[in-house]
Parts: sequence; C-alpha cells; structure tokens
Amino acid sequence: MNKEDQLIARIQKRLSLRGGGTDRDAGLSLGSGDDACVLRATPGREWVASADAFLENVHFVRRLHPPASIGYKALARATSDLAAMGAKPRSYLLSLALPTRLPKRWLDGFLAGMARAARKFGMGLAGGDTSRAPAIAINLTVLGEVRKGRALLRSGARPGDRIFVTGHLGAAQLGLEIILRRLSGQANLRRYLVPHLHPDPPIALAQWLSRRELPSSMMDLSDGLSTDLDRLCRSSGVGASVREASLPLIRVPDSLVHRGFSIPNLALHGGEDYQLLFTVPARAASRIPPTRDGVRITEIGEIVRGRDVLLISADGKSAPLTPRGWDHFSRTRARPK
Amino acid sequence: MNKEDQLIARIQKRLSLRGGGTDRDAGLSLGSGDDACVLRATPGREWVASADAFLENVHFVRRLHPPASIGYKALARATSDLAAMGAKPRSYLLSLALPTRLPKRWLDGFLAGMARAARKFGMGLAGGDTSRAPAIAINLTVLGEVRKGRALLRSGARPGDRIFVTGHLGAAQLGLEIILRRLSGQANLRRYLVPHLHPDPPIALAQWLSRRELPSSMMDLSDGLSTDLDRLCRSSGVGASVREASLPLIRVPDSLVHRGFSIPNLALHGGEDYQLLFTVPARAASRIPPTRDGVRITEIGEIVRGRDVLLISADGKSAPLTPRGWDHFSRTRARPK
Repeated sequence: MNKEDQLIARIQKRLSLRGGGTDRDAGLSLGSGDDACVLRATPGREWVASADAFLENVHFVRRLHPPASIGYKALARATSDLAAMGAKPRSYLLSLALPTRLPKRWLDGFLAGMARAARKFGMGLAGGDTSRAPAIAINLTVLGEVRKGRALLRSGARPGDRIFVTGHLGAAQLGLEIILRRLSGQANLRRYLVPHLHPDPPIALAQWLSRRELPSSMMDLSDGLSTDLDRLCRSSGVGASVREASLPLIRVPDSLVHRGFSIPNLALHGGEDYQLLFTVPARAASRIPPTRDGVRITEIGEIVRGRDVLLISADGKSAPLTPRGWDHFSRTRARPK
Repeated sequence: MNKEDQLIARIQKRLSLRGGGTDRDAGLSLGSGDDACVLRATPGREWVASADAFLENVHFVRRLHPPASIGYKALARATSDLAAMGAKPRSYLLSLALPTRLPKRWLDGFLAGMARAARKFGMGLAGGDTSRAPAIAINLTVLGEVRKGRALLRSGARPGDRIFVTGHLGAAQLGLEIILRRLSGQANLRRYLVPHLHPDPPIALAQWLSRRELPSSMMDLSDGLSTDLDRLCRSSGVGASVREASLPLIRVPDSLVHRGFSIPNLALHGGEDYQLLFTVPARAASRIPPTRDGVRITEIGEIVRGRDVLLISADGKSAPLTPRGWDHFSRTRARPK
C-alpha cells in the first residue's frame, strides 16, 4: 500500500459511518473505495448534488481557525445547499489536498470535525480523492435526496409572497470579525464565535417546510442577505421590499457597538450564516411558526412586481438594497485573512 | 449582479450544452444556477458519482500546459472514473478557484477546452462554485448513469481471470517527460504529447464491455499499472501474474531511447494514461477483440490465488511487481513541476 493509499484508508476509517465501504444508511449501493460511488435509486425520489470549495487563506486561515472547525464547517456549508433545496442529506465526496509538512494532529482534528458534522447531518463518506499541495484545499460534493419534482428552487417567488429568514442575520460575520480584531480571547465574546466556527444549517426545518409545500422559493444565506435576496429576485423575475425594523438582529454587549460593530449592517450584508431565505404565498404565511426545532423564523418583507429590491427604514423611507455581501471577485471587499 | 455572479454567468454560457439551465440531455431535472442540481431518476438506472482535484503546480503548470489542455484534461481524467464503472457520463459540477491576475484569455482557453471535453463525452454543466485563490484549483464532480446493479467494481477479480489493458501503457507519462525535458519543440515528438495533454478515456468501449457483462472487475489506469493493479488485487483479495512481453508498449524514435527513456518502465509505472484495466473470466476471454472503436485491447496476464503481484520476464523469471506508480505522498517520486 503506497502512502497515498494509507492516507485514504485513514480518512475512510475516520469518516465512514460504520467503517465499511457500502453504507445503505447513506443512500449508497456502493460507498467509497472504488473509482466512483453508486447512488441507490429510490422510487419517488431524486438525487440532488452540490459542490463547494473550502480553501486555506481564502475561506479559512490555519493559524486562526481550529482544525476541527475547518473539518466541521467544510461539510456544514456544503450541506446548507442541500437544505436549501429541501433535500435530505445522505452522503459526500471529499477531495482533500494537503501540504507535506502538515502535523498529524491537524489532520486528526480536521477529520474529527468532519465526522462530527457527518453524524449530525446523517451523512456517510461516498468517496473522493487526495493530493499533495502547497496549501490545504478542501472540496466537498454533497448528495441528498428529495421527493420527485419537489426540490425548492430560487425561481418560484411571486409578487405578494412574504419573505422569511431563519436565525439571526449576521451572526457568522460577527464571529469572523471578533477573530480578525483579535477579540476572541475575551470570555464574554466567546459564544459569538460559534455561528462562524460551527454553523448549523436548519436542515430539519428545511425538510419540514418542503414536506408542507409551504415555500414558493428557497435558498441558503451564504453571501449575505443583500446579495442572496438579489439573486433570488433575479431568478424569480421579481422585486422585493424588506422592512429594516423586522430584521432578526444579533444582540451584543454594548462594548462591541462602541467598537464600531454595526449590527444592522452585519444583518444586511454579513456572509456565511447558512440560514434559509424563503418566500411563502400570502395566504399560507400564517402557517409559518415563529420558531421551530429551536430555530427562529422571521418575516422580513414581501415580494413585489418589477426588479427593484428596496429597504424600508423604520421611518418609512425606502432606498435600494444594493448587494454588498460577500463577493470573491470584488477588490473592494475585505477577505478573511 | 456582482463580479462573482458575472463570472458564473460567463462559465455557464460557455459550458452549458444549450445555454440553458435545465438540460434533459445531461440527465438533469434541474441544471446549474440554483443551490444544487437535481438528477433525473430513470427507472432501472442508478447514478454514479466521482470527484477529482486538478491543481496548479501539483497536476499542471501554467507555463508548460496550454489552458485548453488544462480545461479538457480536468474533465477527461474525472470522467475516466465513470468509464471505469461502465457508466454513461451525463453531467458535471465545476468548482473553480482562480487568481485575481489571471488573463481573460487563459479563462477563455480553459473553458473552450472543457467545453470540447464535455461535447466529446456528452456531458452538461450541472453546477459548481467559484472562488478567488492564490493558485488555480479545479475540482470536478462527474455524474453518470449505469444500469441498476451493473456497475463494474474493482473487487470482482477471481483466480484464473485474464487481465486486459486498453491503449498503449505509459504514453501519457512519456508526453509529460518530453515536456519536462524541454523536448516538446521537436516536430517529430509533438504527437507523443497528445496522450498527456488530451487523454482519451475509452468510454464507448467501457460501456460496450459493461453491456456484454464481460469484465469481472474494472478500474481506470490513473497512477500506473504497477500501482493500479496492486489496488485491484487488494480489492479483490487475489494476486496477479503479468507477462512483461505482452505489455502494449509505445513505439518511439531511437533518439528517445538513446536519451534514456525506458519504455518498459513507463508501461509498468507511468501514470495518467486513463485507459482501462479489467479482468475477464477465462471462458469469456476469447470474446474480447484485439481492437474496438479504434482502441487496442491487450491481454497481459492472469489473476492468481494469494496476494502476490508478479512480473514474468521474457526469459520466464518472475519478480514482484512493486507499486512504483504515481504517489502524491511519497517524497521520492518526481512531480510534474
């Protein structure tokens, strides 16, 4: 067995649900260890697939982020895309590129974090590949199942639909900024790191919404409300009107506000929340509870005709809500370094 | 539309089969542009999935490899894993990380090469993601369909089975070494670059073998015969005996032999051929033709009891065939830099 095969065997052992190649619980006819995995066909269901890169010095920094968080978050953020379709997460492929001089305990921590996410989301390792590279490069392909024809798309929002979000917006970005400003050592701020280090996409809630056929459209909030709502509106060919006073803001100690943290700006533009953004026809909006499975659900506005996305302030003034969330290819945005 | 969305729109336009999001020809209920794609369920068929990283300064070097070759090869080498299962390639997810200062013409060339591979293999873009990174990082997830329960595995080889390979072994490694030794300017050597720059996995042949149910096991040759045959044997719990005189060697000008190129060593250990390695029960071996669809097929030995993989030389001596193919994590192997 060459060194690469030894590494693969170690990954398989740490990540497979039962240590075996085939794992029916992960929806597979054939699991990891062959040239490809085989997805079991279940009558009345369709497979859903999404891929996501998680790269050192781009999405995370080795000296700032614990390896267990990197492993956990790599899978959690990819799985958020399955939740956004209303799909049940089943399995994942891991492409892992590692530097030569990476300490063994880094890999152990990383795999423990990913195994934790896999258990939490009920997913089994289906395959992947390994290579050596100057910087850590993680690529996750996530596979889930959805009832045939029932995937929840971005394109179904219609004028009059109510707009909902889950969780507290901007919580992940707040955690990142606490780390970047070297405040993470303060005991009273530590709990604000959790949404950044260990995001918790509301998968059960997404499946409940899908089963009830409540949303007319749905997507996950990965790049910030202003950017993601703009995407949903363009996909659906509609506009939107968001009430600033309705946004579910994070509550923080005054000390953070005094340091210049703008909680409303984080809510509008902060990325990586991995919460849900969805719309519901007005007649069904009352069927959306204020919380479910411990997740807060908030109505923040409504879909309108046209193409404009507007923010209505508390005093009733409206202004365009310009996309100012995460953009990898804009030179004006800060990056997590 | 932010810059990332503009880049995504450009990629989608260049790579989608018909320029549309949904593409039934790619086996999809929903194509690229949403949080995830949806794979259409076809009665009697199962989906097969594999993921493969293709990284700058690891798998390719920007100043040595043309962008069209990088785009073509990224998809071809991933698709080789689908061929190895006997699957029909349908669609793919592209995760693409690009440096800021990459010339526009590099991306155009890259996308043209990938589009060429996608047309050749009959695949449509199903999704993916983009990020900015210091070096180019390409991750392909390929999706194909196979008749239910008929995927060809590595684990089915039995003692007495005959071992076959397609193509000429070591052809891709020869091309790489011609480039690394700065010989690629020589007109009479240019054709030897093709298997390295534009590998051609025998997909139609693999599906023909699968339909006829001839192979007892199959995999692709990606890391060299010695390494891949060892993997097949370990998966199947068997040994193998390979006749050195039967190996389908590349024919090269004497000038290359005089420069120290060892054609038999390339055949035994050279990586990236993306040809097939398969076994067939002895009683069915005569049904394997010497060529099909223009691809040469060669019987090189047989599966034996035990765990040893042996190489039988022309004078009848046998010696262990030690895995000496591509190993990302061995420090003793040259890498393509």
